[in-house]
Amino acid sequence: MRKSLFLACLFTATLNTLAQTPKQQVRQYWQKNQTQLIEEYRNFLRIPNVSADSANIRKNAAFIMQMMQQRGIPAQLLEGTAPGTSPAVFGEINTPGATKTLIFYAHYDGQPVNPKQWTGGLQPFDPVFITAPVEQGGTIVSTYKPGDAIDPNWRLTGRGSADDKAGVMTILNAYDALVKSGIKPTVNVKFFFEGEEEVGSTHLADIFRKHRSKLASDLWIIADGPRHVSGKKLVSFGVRGDVNMHLTVFGPKRPLHSGNYGNWAPNPAQRMVSLLASMKDDEGKVLVKGYYDDVTPLTASEKRAIANLPDMEPALKKELGIAKPDGGGASFANLMMVPTLNINGIQAANVGAMAGNIIPTKAEAVLDLRLVSGNTVQRQTDRILNHIRNRGYHILDRDPTDVERQQYDRLIKVSSKTGYNAQRTPMDLPIAQLVVNAVQSTEAEPIVLSPSSGGSLPLYVFEQELNARVVTVPVVNYDNNQHAENENMRVGYLWDGIETMAAIMLLK
Amino acid sequence: MRKSLFLACLFTATLNTLAQTPKQQVRQYWQKNQTQLIEEYRNFLRIPNVSADSANIRKNAAFIMQMMQQRGIPAQLLEGTAPGTSPAVFGEINTPGATKTLIFYAHYDGQPVNPKQWTGGLQPFDPVFITAPVEQGGTIVSTYKPGDAIDPNWRLTGRGSADDKAGVMTILNAYDALVKSGIKPTVNVKFFFEGEEEVGSTHLADIFRKHRSKLASDLWIIADGPRHVSGKKLVSFGVRGDVNMHLTVFGPKRPLHSGNYGNWAPNPAQRMVSLLASMKDDEGKVLVKGYYDDVTPLTASEKRAIANLPDMEPALKKELGIAKPDGGGASFANLMMVPTLNINGIQAANVGAMAGNIIPTKAEAVLDLRLVSGNTVQRQTDRILNHIRNRGYHILDRDPTDVERQQYDRLIKVSSKTGYNAQRTPMDLPIAQLVVNAVQSTEAEPIVLSPSSGGSLPLYVFEQELNARVVTVPVVNYDNNQHAENENMRVGYLWDGIETMAAIMLLK
Repeated sequence: MRKSLFLACLFTATLNTLAQTPKQQVRQYWQKNQTQLIEEYRNFLRIPNVSADSANIRKNAAFIMQMMQQRGIPAQLLEGTAPGTSPAVFGEINTPGATKTLIFYAHYDGQPVNPKQWTGGLQPFDPVFITAPVEQGGTIVSTYKPGDAIDPNWRLTGRGSADDKAGVMTILNAYDALVKSGIKPTVNVKFFFEGEEEVGSTHLADIFRKHRSKLASDLWIIADGPRHVSGKKLVSFGVRGDVNMHLTVFGPKRPLHSGNYGNWAPNPAQRMVSLLASMKDDEGKVLVKGYYDDVTPLTASEKRAIANLPDMEPALKKELGIAKPDGGGASFANLMMVPTLNINGIQAANVGAMAGNIIPTKAEAVLDLRLVSGNTVQRQTDRILNHIRNRGYHILDRDPTDVERQQYDRLIKVSSKTGYNAQRTPMDLPIAQLVVNAVQSTEAEPIVLSPSSGGSLPLYVFEQELNARVVTVPVVNYDNNQHAENENMRVGYLWDGIETMAAIMLLK
Repeated sequence: MRKSLFLACLFTATLNTLAQTPKQQVRQYWQKNQTQLIEEYRNFLRIPNVSADSANIRKNAAFIMQMMQQRGIPAQLLEGTAPGTSPAVFGEINTPGATKTLIFYAHYDGQPVNPKQWTGGLQPFDPVFITAPVEQGGTIVSTYKPGDAIDPNWRLTGRGSADDKAGVMTILNAYDALVKSGIKPTVNVKFFFEGEEEVGSTHLADIFRKHRSKLASDLWIIADGPRHVSGKKLVSFGVRGDVNMHLTVFGPKRPLHSGNYGNWAPNPAQRMVSLLASMKDDEGKVLVKGYYDDVTPLTASEKRAIANLPDMEPALKKELGIAKPDGGGASFANLMMVPTLNINGIQAANVGAMAGNIIPTKAEAVLDLRLVSGNTVQRQTDRILNHIRNRGYHILDRDPTDVERQQYDRLIKVSSKTGYNAQRTPMDLPIAQLVVNAVQSTEAEPIVLSPSSGGSLPLYVFEQELNARVVTVPVVNYDNNQHAENENMRVGYLWDGIETMAAIMLLK
């Protein structure tokens, strides 16, 4: 390029920059680079990312390192202590003069896939555009080729497209948009991309402890989960905790002919239904003693936020085919602020064509307990155990011996997976308020502020190990088929997410 | 053979005959012919007999015809009206001067098999001897070759070995034992071997109607089911009726994240457990209104028979690992005389490693209702339907429409397969008493008389279509793994069964 042309170009670029707000410049960035951003995202999605698939998980980590280096972010792997730990990918950009440090979090691993369950021609690791969710009649945009215009209502498909490679892409491209537009972040920016979130963040505490010195911050920004059901942008200040309990009620040692033994041999399925029925009333209220006792009352700002949440119940009832919700008339939002007791699954013998006229040998059920502030995993599971004991059961952590079968009328095996407590960040925390302002600055309509999402993330680990503060800023559509077949992300929300994360990097 | 030797042999045979009771002669028959009887039985068991396998079912029927013809019994197939009906095999021997006619019934079809479930080296259609049930540590008698001595405690394995080719073999060989010993039955003997019992005797009524003229009798002898649990011989005067109900409770139209919707979206598994729990108390008593109302009271002879039944409860409790049976202290035998409500199976979503943190879309259960004298299928299923309705459910016979989902809070699909009523023969029926005497004549110890077995057979069809009387005289061991893998028959009971059936053919 000749020097005069170079100067002219520089002049034009500077003029453009001067004429535009950072928000406009970020928008221009993604508008100009749509094809390239999408193709890079598709390459990312082509690398299988099931958490247990260590070899591919490391390929994903390497791909992220490469994307970071291309954007001028020095990247490194944070390894855990235990062999087989999937690494976190870490990077750090210091902003001279900045007084605050934000760490942006996303995870790059995904849930298991069963390709046979994917429909409409979709495959878990062959990302394509669809016109709408397959379940709503969407079809593959088969004519699309790179360079074509991209409809923001299209969905990009594939495992991780929503949960949570979208988080990685919006964070890295927000930073890139600023740098390429010549805008400096107002804060020190750190990047932390986890590789084990979908298997319970087993080694996250270990990675935190081992690399604590790198991870100092004023606030973590968690880019995970869906936007509000209304489609509005959301800042969430907490999550419910979570623990599973697996129950097995034992019956006769071998399956019995239901005629030759019926009325005499106790049926473990009947006992299981009786036990589970005793735990909740017909409106979904938990009857287990003390279950709601230690719930921390909502603060004034939490109550205010809940009152301001959009009312999605009429739309949800219609979409989901629900005539009358549980909860005895309490609002959806308020019901997310109390602990749950949910039957994830129940099984004894067979149903349908495989059913036989038998008394089964056992009945199994899996319970999911969501916890709120004030609850602990220990106390909440103890309450369930006490309830079971009070119903006459002898509780084991393994199958019964013959002697125990003779000794105890009611035998149950209970095992709990490691769970975690709820986490909540005070809604009036000043730096969190700055994040709210930043996200609000990208939208004309009021964004949604939620004291806690109904779902769970192990955010307690952040508080416990790092004494850190956390808020969640989701980017993807709520109907993204997260954890299931046909996972997808609405493309317009990818662009929105880049704008949101860039605004947070510029918080004032 | 030279004439003098022939005469000498004849003389010896006659002397033997003169010196022996018919019972002894029948015993001598099976003792002399063990190898041949077992090899013929094994050839029979090698022909697959799963009810739905029409081609092989007809090969079984042909094999039976051949066995009958070899024994001098003119045999024919009784075909049904509908195409695809498996035929019954029929034969008839008139005894000059006889005033009574007995029809001996067994069925030659068997339950489906899953060869992968068979253990200890056993295969469904490759009959071998085992030293004891595989589940009790029995192993294949690999050294056995035809001609070797056969231990009566050995089991002969294979689908149908117990249920119910054993019935066919004992009936035909009992008749043969008499004929070969030069003994005439005291009754006219008819033979009826069904080919569709394991699929609900779908066309039995049709075959009865079509061939009614051939099937006149004073009594049917049903050679099916196991001997008493005590090992004693049994004459049973009735069966419970049976009907299944399939229930599906509906939840949200798609599986929901248990965190994001928990406490708000009704869980169909919770509703199903609540519904099923409401049907029975903790001791197994059915709480459905009127469930026990129309039970016919036991007659004096039935009560007496029940009081005389051997008490197997201590042994059963130990074997099955049951500390306290249902029934509030009522005896096993009395509990078989009242209707049941059994959960055959229940399922919603998944348990174990496949369980997800979701609110399932539906919960399914299969109920088995056993009926006793006085009950009808219609009234008993109506009571269940009323109970469900009184719990607030709108009942459908198909999946709900979107409009119905909006309209009704509680939706359930209920389908009932065709069932049948109980059947009971009066215990003091004179000809049945003659049968009891005949069976008792083969044993030193008192045999067991039961007013009704706990299990079910469509014996009501015999009464309804033929105005017939029926008693059941089982021949096989109770631990025969009927309907399941590793089916087997204790060889000693084959010999016992031949003696029993022969004694009945000689009833006085």
